Amino acid sequence: MKLQTTLLCSLLCSCLLSDIALADKQYRNPDNPNLADKGEGTYPIPYKKPVIKEITDSLHKIRNYLESTTPTRVINKSTGAPISDFKKPIKEAIFEPSKGDYGIMVYEMGVVHSGLLKARAATDDKSFTDMTERHFRFFVDTMPYFKAQEAQFHLERANSFSRFLDPRSLDDSGSMCAALIRARLAKVGPDLKHMIDICGNWVSKQQFRLADGTLARKRPQAVSLWADDMYMSIPALAELGRLTGDNAYFDDAVNNVLQMSAYMFNAQRGLYTHGWNENNPDAPRFYWARANGWAVLAMSDLLDVLPKNHPGYPKVLNQLRASLKGIAELQSGKGLWHQMLDRNDSYLETSASAMFVYAIAHAVNQGWISPSTWGSIAQAGWIGLSTRITDKGEIEGICVGTTFASDHAYYYNRPTSVEALHGYGPMLMAGAEVIQMLKNPAFNIEHKVRTYHYVPTGAAKTDYREHH
Amino acid sequence: MKLQTTLLCSLLCSCLLSDIALADKQYRNPDNPNLADKGEGTYPIPYKKPVIKEITDSLHKIRNYLESTTPTRVINKSTGAPISDFKKPIKEAIFEPSKGDYGIMVYEMGVVHSGLLKARAATDDKSFTDMTERHFRFFVDTMPYFKAQEAQFHLERANSFSRFLDPRSLDDSGSMCAALIRARLAKVGPDLKHMIDICGNWVSKQQFRLADGTLARKRPQAVSLWADDMYMSIPALAELGRLTGDNAYFDDAVNNVLQMSAYMFNAQRGLYTHGWNENNPDAPRFYWARANGWAVLAMSDLLDVLPKNHPGYPKVLNQLRASLKGIAELQSGKGLWHQMLDRNDSYLETSASAMFVYAIAHAVNQGWISPSTWGSIAQAGWIGLSTRITDKGEIEGICVGTTFASDHAYYYNRPTSVEALHGYGPMLMAGAEVIQMLKNPAFNIEHKVRTYHYVPTGAAKTDYREHH
Amino acid sequence: MKLQTTLLCSLLCSCLLSDIALADKQYRNPDNPNLADKGEGTYPIPYKKPVIKEITDSLHKIRNYLESTTPTRVINKSTGAPISDFKKPIKEAIFEPSKGDYGIMVYEMGVVHSGLLKARAATDDKSFTDMTERHFRFFVDTMPYFKAQEAQFHLERANSFSRFLDPRSLDDSGSMCAALIRARLAKVGPDLKHMIDICGNWVSKQQFRLADGTLARKRPQAVSLWADDMYMSIPALAELGRLTGDNAYFDDAVNNVLQMSAYMFNAQRGLYTHGWNENNPDAPRFYWARANGWAVLAMSDLLDVLPKNHPGYPKVLNQLRASLKGIAELQSGKGLWHQMLDRNDSYLETSASAMFVYAIAHAVNQGWISPSTWGSIAQAGWIGLSTRITDKGEIEGICVGTTFASDHAYYYNRPTSVEALHGYGPMLMAGAEVIQMLKNPAFNIEHKVRTYHYVPTGAAKTDYREHH
Repeated sequence: MKLQTTLLCSLLCSCLLSDIALADKQYRNPDNPNLADKGEGTYPIPYKKPVIKEITDSLHKIRNYLESTTPTRVINKSTGAPISDFKKPIKEAIFEPSKGDYGIMVYEMGVVHSGLLKARAATDDKSFTDMTERHFRFFVDTMPYFKAQEAQFHLERANSFSRFLDPRSLDDSGSMCAALIRARLAKVGPDLKHMIDICGNWVSKQQFRLADGTLARKRPQAVSLWADDMYMSIPALAELGRLTGDNAYFDDAVNNVLQMSAYMFNAQRGLYTHGWNENNPDAPRFYWARANGWAVLAMSDLLDVLPKNHPGYPKVLNQLRASLKGIAELQSGKGLWHQMLDRNDSYLETSASAMFVYAIAHAVNQGWISPSTWGSIAQAGWIGLSTRITDKGEIEGICVGTTFASDHAYYYNRPTSVEALHGYGPMLMAGAEVIQMLKNPAFNIEHKVRTYHYVPTGAAKTDYREHH
Repeated sequence: MKLQTTLLCSLLCSCLLSDIALADKQYRNPDNPNLADKGEGTYPIPYKKPVIKEITDSLHKIRNYLESTTPTRVINKSTGAPISDFKKPIKEAIFEPSKGDYGIMVYEMGVVHSGLLKARAATDDKSFTDMTERHFRFFVDTMPYFKAQEAQFHLERANSFSRFLDPRSLDDSGSMCAALIRARLAKVGPDLKHMIDICGNWVSKQQFRLADGTLARKRPQAVSLWADDMYMSIPALAELGRLTGDNAYFDDAVNNVLQMSAYMFNAQRGLYTHGWNENNPDAPRFYWARANGWAVLAMSDLLDVLPKNHPGYPKVLNQLRASLKGIAELQSGKGLWHQMLDRNDSYLETSASAMFVYAIAHAVNQGWISPSTWGSIAQAGWIGLSTRITDKGEIEGICVGTTFASDHAYYYNRPTSVEALHGYGPMLMAGAEVIQMLKNPAFNIEHKVRTYHYVPTGAAKTDYREHH
Repeated sequence: MKLQTTLLCSLLCSCLLSDIALADKQYRNPDNPNLADKGEGTYPIPYKKPVIKEITDSLHKIRNYLESTTPTRVINKSTGAPISDFKKPIKEAIFEPSKGDYGIMVYEMGVVHSGLLKARAATDDKSFTDMTERHFRFFVDTMPYFKAQEAQFHLERANSFSRFLDPRSLDDSGSMCAALIRARLAKVGPDLKHMIDICGNWVSKQQFRLADGTLARKRPQAVSLWADDMYMSIPALAELGRLTGDNAYFDDAVNNVLQMSAYMFNAQRGLYTHGWNENNPDAPRFYWARANGWAVLAMSDLLDVLPKNHPGYPKVLNQLRASLKGIAELQSGKGLWHQMLDRNDSYLETSASAMFVYAIAHAVNQGWISPSTWGSIAQAGWIGLSTRITDKGEIEGICVGTTFASDHAYYYNRPTSVEALHGYGPMLMAGAEVIQMLKNPAFNIEHKVRTYHYVPTGAAKTDYREHH
């Protein structure tokens, strides 16, 4: 009977604990050594000035996890046996699937590579891009094989290499295209010019567009825009501009920022709605967090390479600032952002939060926005993100793949999964950029009156002599 | 002791379960047959494409419940004995009260009759209006008796027939007036022209108005407007216009839409505040859901009969669209709407949600708004509503009668009751209109990437060949 | 084993009860005597018309508590021994600390004195200002001693009298300055002209300002504005104007209302952001409740003494009205307001709620806003506040001292404490003003249809004859 009672209570307990933030761990800020300070309180996140060593360790955990879960082998999908003879293609040959669900050629993996490059730059540790080299080498090695397989078996989307043999969407092309160019310019991995040509060509020349040139899709309605597509196109166009020096790419990127924003940005709220349908231009809006994340990443990536004298530069910068302000004002009390940005009863979502932390920290580091206020927001955001990284290097609370939908019941109830790759690249980027922020000599991070103030160096000084 | 333990735990459990959405049932969408699909997740509502047979069954349950709880007999209120001798009135004679609290002559019952007429039209099942015929026959049969009772005993509001013997308000008149005319034009029940004349006269000629013609009340302040009064007047005026062909009724209806909106509609939010007081024209606002429901129902009912060449037609249509957009953007993740539309910590309220689902689905079916986006919103709304109908045909979560008040403590804490008739008519209307939407040939309902898209037929096609 | 079970369950229970509003007490409105009224429901606060006797009792509890926790003695901080020989200063001499943490010279205590003066005026009970007389007498008695101490030991901020020996901030000066002048003009306590000169001089002449004259601080950034500083300066300037008749003080006060509002008021939301930094003028905003409380108190205090023919009068009045409207629309369903006004997932905070209740009730009593709507809001607010006063006279739910910060994680997680003095003065003010409101002959408080309506007297009458 004792057992029974305990079981009953345990059941009740575990049911409670899983559903309610009942036993939220509370943290005291270790930067305040005065344990008797009644003004300090506690936090549901480990509120403190982030420590570079701890961030770096977290980034390595994630890197290790991704290394261990992204095999680069060809196998027979029926037998599971590895294939090493690349002379004669067989129909059953596929990329060995990840135990997680981490496709090595998906757009999310493009973000991972971009994140690994940033982690390497922030830490000067080349091990971060080992995985990038391994993946890209694998692409070089296996493309002819899968090309031959396609010629013989016509597998279309089922061909593991389909995104580059038969690209059909911005999802297929843009993110990986930007990553390939970045790796090339950083001299990481083999030369993949032939793949860059394929994806670059799709993004710039072949993707369906509105009459005004805005990059569009034929789903979920016959003519639709997705805010996500800002990231799936603009960074690639921007990097193509950088790679080739051809201004037409920059013009196209700038025009897409401005036109996508004209269709999907709510200037009153400072937020992007997830998408837009030509057959219902004034529709109810859905402020899905990750779509806003893609939008700000895209603008940030563009500004990184857009010549400062390009006439679009100040416009893109203003649009980025307006978006970041709308987003920042909706940060939760736990540093993270909600799945639906305007709904604090939707869950706190990791991938979008990581994109926001990266975009804000990067904008601070680039001087696009002031360290004052913004630095603290990025810092609190990182603290929130840090709670989502497990010891194994998995990332929790990431919304799985989500289509442009038309009802809040769908969006609120998207499951989260550590197998959703969407959050891994942004988390690497966020951590790397926060490291850069902590090292940035342009401001001091003052811990004063129990919180953090990013104070520009070299300007007028603050004065706390008045404070009791 | 085992018993005791179990009791303790049960007590704890039941206390928890009643107060917290702890053990929320979770549903998997049956339209996705792939049980291994990690992208599907679960929902707190039975998210799926609604099934006409299931909606029809629900409507019959509600109809049966209302039939069984709305007696049409005269009784002696002291003894409870039925009265069948209608020659000599006695003071104690009253309409037999409902076991629920469903008055047969109240404005809420007017909505029920309008809902039953719509359910009949949507299902081609005449049994839906049996109750309407029975009630209206009872009115014909008993009016002379209660008139004589009043002449002799002067009971005023205590006379069961007082709303038609001595009408004093739009609540007394407008909703039932619209229902009586609709039944008459649909040839349902006896001819009640004499009653139509009474209520029609009150609404159009006798109700208190502002100097500019806006229909007003003398409570809670000496000169007040109620958004609810849009429904308590405009449908009646509209139906009087249809019945008589006299444009003055349409003009009055249109003017009241536009003037009520000028006083009470917040165009920035797309919402109506519950009411307006002449002595405090710029007061804090209360976005009570049901008041917004009455407003959109009223505009929708007017557009149904307003000649398309009436100069007010596009103005009313624009006002309806603006309201629906504001409302739609606040739909919860459970398909329903909150008691205070802008407050997600107020409860999910059924009657307003039903009005919104009806108004959106009807506007889609009429082509006033696009099926794209809006169809999905109406569908998710119905799914939410479906959880509120019990096996008995009762409807849960309906806010009881609520006055135009001046503090959020009042509005948040209005009780809900299955005895609040306000939700029954709207639920019948919503179900009937969603049936029509599911049968509407103007669009296809595509279940794609785990959600629903209402795609206009005959236009350009969607294309998912890109999707992995 | 029984014990063990009970223990387990109790543990679970207590853990639940402390963290969740699970067992929220529910109150039935005693003003509705009909216990069978299904339309009444229950409230999480004791919703009813406030009773003057009960408010007065609450104010006395608070007064008693403050009397008993604010010693006015000088002690040796090392030994704790009282010091009564004021001839030769010793370094260890300090004001005896309160068991709570209620400094007798802090700005929060200035608000307490202003509140006690109001409580006395509302109740005609002179005992309310006994404490004011005692504190102010103590200032007269000990100032020379601490002045001598400072001359000899140079203790700076550690000198108990430092705020008047070496004022350095608006926090040091403004609130107490206003209280000293008010007491003087009400002939309460000794004449403290020399102290008024010191603090008045600091506020009007010595505090750091922007080039345009706006009162500023050098923290947390080199040039910062705090909305709190509206209260820390404007009431003092206003009272100096009243005391001296010098219009320059009024001009300065008006200019600071208008300029502070230009920098920090979001007119679209009707809310003040906590502060503003010159190095980041378009920063994300933080709608901290108490900062808004200080702002509306400051404007209200100014209007109390500003000549009606001053050109700034209508501007200040409009600004107060706009602020109160934004605030009122965010009142919670429990009558109180949230720590972050726009975030209903932040806690309900007492000090700001008390300031809002005072400011609204006072504006109603002064005729600055209509009793209609506003009276009910103030009343519901007081009902909410009443639940925060303990039998001991402590006040619960007060956010502790809070700096102008830059992230929501900080603001959401500020602890609350009965030792935070910030709520005591505002609670006294709120209670006193609600007493005045209940006695105000300009309107009747009608309890109709289960809620409260403040109806102006002498105007057109309301009419409920239509109501069933």
